[in-house]
Amino acid sequence: MSGNTFGTLFTVTTFGESHGPAIGCVIDGCPPGMELSEADIQPELDRRKPGTSRHVTQRQEPDLVEILSGVYQGKTTGTPIALLIRNQDQRSKDYGNITDTFRPGHADFTYWCKYGIRDPRGGGRSSARLTAPVVGAAAIAKKWLKQKFGTEFSGGMTQLGDIQVPFQGWEHTTQNPFFAPTADAALLERMESYMDALRKDGDSIGARIQVLARNVPAGLGQPIYDKLDADIAYAMMGINAVKGVEIGAGFESVSQRGSVHGDEITPHGFVGNNAGGVLGGISTGQDITVSIAIKPTSSIRVPRRSLDIHGNPVVVETFGRHDPCVGIRATPIAEAMLALVLMDHALRHRAQCSDVMPQNLFTGD
Amino acid sequence: MSGNTFGTLFTVTTFGESHGPAIGCVIDGCPPGMELSEADIQPELDRRKPGTSRHVTQRQEPDLVEILSGVYQGKTTGTPIALLIRNQDQRSKDYGNITDTFRPGHADFTYWCKYGIRDPRGGGRSSARLTAPVVGAAAIAKKWLKQKFGTEFSGGMTQLGDIQVPFQGWEHTTQNPFFAPTADAALLERMESYMDALRKDGDSIGARIQVLARNVPAGLGQPIYDKLDADIAYAMMGINAVKGVEIGAGFESVSQRGSVHGDEITPHGFVGNNAGGVLGGISTGQDITVSIAIKPTSSIRVPRRSLDIHGNPVVVETFGRHDPCVGIRATPIAEAMLALVLMDHALRHRAQCSDVMPQNLFTGD
Amino acid sequence: MSGNTFGTLFTVTTFGESHGPAIGCVIDGCPPGMELSEADIQPELDRRKPGTSRHVTQRQEPDLVEILSGVYQGKTTGTPIALLIRNQDQRSKDYGNITDTFRPGHADFTYWCKYGIRDPRGGGRSSARLTAPVVGAAAIAKKWLKQKFGTEFSGGMTQLGDIQVPFQGWEHTTQNPFFAPTADAALLERMESYMDALRKDGDSIGARIQVLARNVPAGLGQPIYDKLDADIAYAMMGINAVKGVEIGAGFESVSQRGSVHGDEITPHGFVGNNAGGVLGGISTGQDITVSIAIKPTSSIRVPRRSLDIHGNPVVVETFGRHDPCVGIRATPIAEAMLALVLMDHALRHRAQCSDVMPQNLFTGD
Amino acid sequence: MSGNTFGTLFTVTTFGESHGPAIGCVIDGCPPGMELSEADIQPELDRRKPGTSRHVTQRQEPDLVEILSGVYQGKTTGTPIALLIRNQDQRSKDYGNITDTFRPGHADFTYWCKYGIRDPRGGGRSSARLTAPVVGAAAIAKKWLKQKFGTEFSGGMTQLGDIQVPFQGWEHTTQNPFFAPTADAALLERMESYMDALRKDGDSIGARIQVLARNVPAGLGQPIYDKLDADIAYAMMGINAVKGVEIGAGFESVSQRGSVHGDEITPHGFVGNNAGGVLGGISTGQDITVSIAIKPTSSIRVPRRSLDIHGNPVVVETFGRHDPCVGIRATPIAEAMLALVLMDHALRHRAQCSDVMPQNLFTGD
Repeated sequence: MSGNTFGTLFTVTTFGESHGPAIGCVIDGCPPGMELSEADIQPELDRRKPGTSRHVTQRQEPDLVEILSGVYQGKTTGTPIALLIRNQDQRSKDYGNITDTFRPGHADFTYWCKYGIRDPRGGGRSSARLTAPVVGAAAIAKKWLKQKFGTEFSGGMTQLGDIQVPFQGWEHTTQNPFFAPTADAALLERMESYMDALRKDGDSIGARIQVLARNVPAGLGQPIYDKLDADIAYAMMGINAVKGVEIGAGFESVSQRGSVHGDEITPHGFVGNNAGGVLGGISTGQDITVSIAIKPTSSIRVPRRSLDIHGNPVVVETFGRHDPCVGIRATPIAEAMLALVLMDHALRHRAQCSDVMPQNLFTGD
Repeated sequence: MSGNTFGTLFTVTTFGESHGPAIGCVIDGCPPGMELSEADIQPELDRRKPGTSRHVTQRQEPDLVEILSGVYQGKTTGTPIALLIRNQDQRSKDYGNITDTFRPGHADFTYWCKYGIRDPRGGGRSSARLTAPVVGAAAIAKKWLKQKFGTEFSGGMTQLGDIQVPFQGWEHTTQNPFFAPTADAALLERMESYMDALRKDGDSIGARIQVLARNVPAGLGQPIYDKLDADIAYAMMGINAVKGVEIGAGFESVSQRGSVHGDEITPHGFVGNNAGGVLGGISTGQDITVSIAIKPTSSIRVPRRSLDIHGNPVVVETFGRHDPCVGIRATPIAEAMLALVLMDHALRHRAQCSDVMPQNLFTGD
Repeated sequence: MSGNTFGTLFTVTTFGESHGPAIGCVIDGCPPGMELSEADIQPELDRRKPGTSRHVTQRQEPDLVEILSGVYQGKTTGTPIALLIRNQDQRSKDYGNITDTFRPGHADFTYWCKYGIRDPRGGGRSSARLTAPVVGAAAIAKKWLKQKFGTEFSGGMTQLGDIQVPFQGWEHTTQNPFFAPTADAALLERMESYMDALRKDGDSIGARIQVLARNVPAGLGQPIYDKLDADIAYAMMGINAVKGVEIGAGFESVSQRGSVHGDEITPHGFVGNNAGGVLGGISTGQDITVSIAIKPTSSIRVPRRSLDIHGNPVVVETFGRHDPCVGIRATPIAEAMLALVLMDHALRHRAQCSDVMPQNLFTGD
Repeated sequence: MSGNTFGTLFTVTTFGESHGPAIGCVIDGCPPGMELSEADIQPELDRRKPGTSRHVTQRQEPDLVEILSGVYQGKTTGTPIALLIRNQDQRSKDYGNITDTFRPGHADFTYWCKYGIRDPRGGGRSSARLTAPVVGAAAIAKKWLKQKFGTEFSGGMTQLGDIQVPFQGWEHTTQNPFFAPTADAALLERMESYMDALRKDGDSIGARIQVLARNVPAGLGQPIYDKLDADIAYAMMGINAVKGVEIGAGFESVSQRGSVHGDEITPHGFVGNNAGGVLGGISTGQDITVSIAIKPTSSIRVPRRSLDIHGNPVVVETFGRHDPCVGIRATPIAEAMLALVLMDHALRHRAQCSDVMPQNLFTGD
């Protein structure tokens, strides 16, 4: 209720601050009997960790995960799985100059308004570092969904500032530092140069990320409030710096006619996917497709007008090791949130409807 | 948990189907002692009701609300407030021809997948008619927020298909059938003609709606999962036919630099509102601004390929009284969802932080 | 969250006051496809309704239930089932003399403390009349549990004041006005006389009720907080006037040795049932047995010292149509609460563990 | 939802198994700005820790608590507080002989039925060791309640097997190994001898514990389902080995007349406390009084008939370091659960009713 638990039947309760002793989470509701070890989780954490290229924060943090509970003899027991990640790079002196001032566009202003407390240690609780435990938890969800339904996730950057990234294939996202789904060397070179110039300017930039889930069973989603797309929107908008969410055709739907937008159905499946895999808040069996807008980082060197905690006008410049484009590391996080939503709804569906099994209209099963 | 309750501390549990005996809701968590009668609720219901212009469904339904509980001697008692709206226009024969087929882009396919049941009576539970109880509940939230903080809501259509509606003033939204914030007679004429042509074609169209809340106190929102903007996204994406949600600058953030996006702060307040009133998931005290994309209605006369419930290919044409642009009636609904989110977070904030009252940085209070 | 919803996956949200226009509930989470009509619900309501003997309140209220939603063509649809019961006997003038005073032992004192509001109409929201919608909802749960597992419920009065009721058989509970599991005519006569004398005195008395569920599958319950017995205790203590709850051996466990208390297990089943069907918060497959203590009604004619709402000392005598022993009508209510808890946990179990199916140790299945 | 989170606004999510790497919890919803360190928590953990007398398990475990998050510069920040307790005494070989068999009266049978998994390491998740994190969390709740309302907690053993412990004063509970509220040396001697004999027999025994909270504000509790007493019953019945719960007069209410039971009210306060501080599910301002029945430990040396996991009959004798009377260490646990319930309801009350402040009827404030 206080906002640190994600999900309803597969819940992830996170704790920790960017520069405190540790971060982690408690995962409740994982079905028993699934093989699980740190080796299932660590690779996902490695995908989002800092310091992997010159375009992201240079903070060095191995983010080693320890499973504290919920696994016995290599299998989940059905009891809570606690993940612990000790913070190692707690260098908070970089933030010394911002202790009493508010960065324009940053959560430090609103945390002050809400709690009456400043925790300047790297953004404290509002830091994107807190996505690490979630990515860890989602690794468990991904494994279960894969085993149960064959569900798979992909994602990548489709726009960096004004630079569009035409889609060539998800397999390319592992071959460049942007998770860009392209093998276009010239384009990637342009993105690199763009980032270098930006960093030199001490400025930051936004990005657009797309994520996708394949092999999602039809029927997931709880109308009329915990619709699958509503919960996806909640999950995505809750990621640090996200300002917009689209499902399927998204804002293009505004100028589409119904005769164009509605995906026709044939015995071989849907024709098109303007729905993004969700109709009436329930999955259709198509791919779930989601796009998000990520704003530019607020911690920049460019001087900006602001206030201090006493209300006095100040000029703020933020030094330290910040991502100039938080969108670059957002792909594994967005995939993780999508996985958590699907996992939760898979459990919710079988609670309410486990006896219902309409004929698969396409396969006749 | 089964998806028919909205909110956590100020909850709205709805029930009913489009053509069943009645629709309604139970509102739990309304603070005691507020004056309340049907006269506070009916005007909001009238704003969204069908049959108000030739551009919306011609279903005639007075949507008269009855308060069944929770009010004694004209004041709320702190106990649940039940609202009841009897369905009067239950003419379901119009839907006879779609009983066994799925409309492309419609929830009837997914309800079948999930529940194994067809309720063809006007979309059953998935009908936009179910927004009526929510609008009723939100009237209560709006009244409380107005009395407590002076919060006010506005909203209107900013795009109809390809037609942009440049903003001239919210006061104009009551003067035309589209909730368009404009007094431009030529533009309104163009919108009317556009809708007439569309209706003649038996087709439908999407729309973009913007809603806004003024005088929202700073500090609302529960990081890091029940962020205010996350809950707004959840609320908006959960409205029938919504495919995209933006807060503040939304998808424009993608191409903004940090030095442009971050709203500077001066002793007189924020300069700009790219944040849309939310930073780090917590309200800043600025206006909350939200835009949504609404897809075109799936119930159209244009023939489309689909399947029947046995998996056989069919061609579907939908007759009956459908909104050719569900966006037209969406403004009061989107305002309602925003009001419910703010109300819920106002109660949540005082649960956790009622002792916290940092100095207002702008007024010194 | 505001306390008017019971359950987590099978939720019952009630509304209404004793003498308002109507009472009712919304049931969310009922699996789709079960046959259901008012005829399944009304008999349970009739079991608890007032006016059935001279030992209970003479309020005449047919308590006719109407299903407003969630059922189509005679089957549940998986969407919310709303039940409505119009109040017909709204004679509140009987309560006129208690508008400004507090009855010793009655909720009117605490409602005043909490909400700052007096609703003297028959106890308002705190009236035992509000158990009617719950009994209605439980009729649905009972039907589902019966079809799914063969679960059956029994219950009756095992003590009236100082009068012990030795158990002879549950079938006798329908043959006397007390739900007493006895055919002992002399004993029943003694109970009748006792009640007549009490009524003449204008006083009231407590009672002990036992309820039981047979054919409950092993494995229900969510440790370590939503244990099955914890949720049963919550459900039972929440019934009006209940002051104590026992599972299995209950308070007798205090003086039992472990070698006596622990139910031995043989290939033919458990030997004894001190556990009351629950170990470690999870059902064993044995009968679930629960006893509750019900305090005497606080609305009595005997003069008592109290205060008015201004803090002035007064002497209170309560007239009107009150049950001199609320325990008499408590049996169907306690059964209902037990059924709701079991239903909720049945759904929760299959959400988390539907793949788990250990061999039945007794049958080898 | 999976049962490992206690509370709604002040939530405690625990994790860990008796002999895994660590146990702990995440506390969400603690108001910001309260001074807090391990020194506030450790003393409560020390009260319940094993190995303090010859009458409890000889497991040696310092139970040192570490705060991982939610505290900055010595004050709570309003973000989650994670507590970590490393298990040090993980000697599970003692349990080797019970790996494949079920102890009569023990949760190992039902965990097998539910999860299909045996975790014989000291009871795994079902161990009473898991009350340690809860006691830690409750130390925080107690501190807040003390500062806010002056609330104080007491508790002790009022019956050991057949030995009644007449109340002499709570201050005596710290002077004997039983938390017995007596200074009667002969009685204490008798209790010691009784326990020694029992241990020699390899058997165990039940106990009755009473706990009490003073200075609880009137108005706490959310009718009609999350009644204060309902939530207390839930909390208490959820403690390991509890089989019965009483509020106030409890089962004595059964034989009380209304003219005796209802606590009269005078300008100086209530006369008596049969209510146990709760009427209609809402606190009255009187002391909250609760009694619980604790069954004898199921892990005993006395041979008992049972089955193994293959359904074969076996005779079970349990060796190892078990409490012969789990009731002895239950007092701090029961106090802790009561504190958590009150804390949760204090926050819930101010969410819904923070504006309501009726005149205190006794003081005129």
